Amino acid sequence: MTPPETLGPVTSLDAAIAGRLKRDADGLVPAVVQDATSHDVLMVGWMDDEALHRTLTTRRGTFWSRSRQSYWVKGETSGHIQEVREVRLDCDGDTLLVVVDQTGPACHTGDRTCFDADRLL
Amino acid sequence: MTPPETLGPVTSLDAAIAGRLKRDADGLVPAVVQDATSHDVLMVGWMDDEALHRTLTTRRGTFWSRSRQSYWVKGETSGHIQEVREVRLDCDGDTLLVVVDQTGPACHTGDRTCFDADRLL
Repeated sequence: MTPPETLGPVTSLDAAIAGRLKRDADGLVPAVVQDATSHDVLMVGWMDDEALHRTLTTRRGTFWSRSRQSYWVKGETSGHIQEVREVRLDCDGDTLLVVVDQTGPACHTGDRTCFDADRLL
Repeated sequence: MTPPETLGPVTSLDAAIAGRLKRDADGLVPAVVQDATSHDVLMVGWMDDEALHRTLTTRRGTFWSRSRQSYWVKGETSGHIQEVREVRLDCDGDTLLVVVDQTGPACHTGDRTCFDADRLL
């Protein structure tokens, strides 16, 4: 095992990307996750620099939980992982689009997407 | 002209919907806007209760600008309007999905979507 303190720049988001990110007061940006095949919007998670770094380098959708105040990897308990194909930053630098191959349902409720259950209009 | 103070509940978001919304510290939720035909994710805006109410009742994508601290209707100056077909609330009640017929490019840069220009992966 390599101790984390020796990993150096491997744990840091690329400076050229970090310089383009416009984070909210909590250091976060919303990350819209879209299915590469169906094009369904599956969910929205939140990323700080480290979550984005992990997503880009591991190609697994990795987010910051605002309620639990910790990182989580989609599917780490359910097996419903997201293999990341593309990551895009929007024109304002304050939102990410993450295009994935989703294994199983994306929603923790068992629904295919997090937007299946509650239609307002 | 009807003075705004006589409009009453017309200007208020339906209480059953308002009760399900989980807003951030600024009273906002992100609204992911998706093209009904291409299924492209076009942009992400922000809505408070009133912006959501206006979106649901006028069927025009209406948002809160965090930088200008004011409401804006997509296309009000550019003509690149969004006719709203569906609005969905996610499983946590803290994100909206707005499915639209988009006239013209969705991005103020002239790009088709706000995610066209900056691919990180």
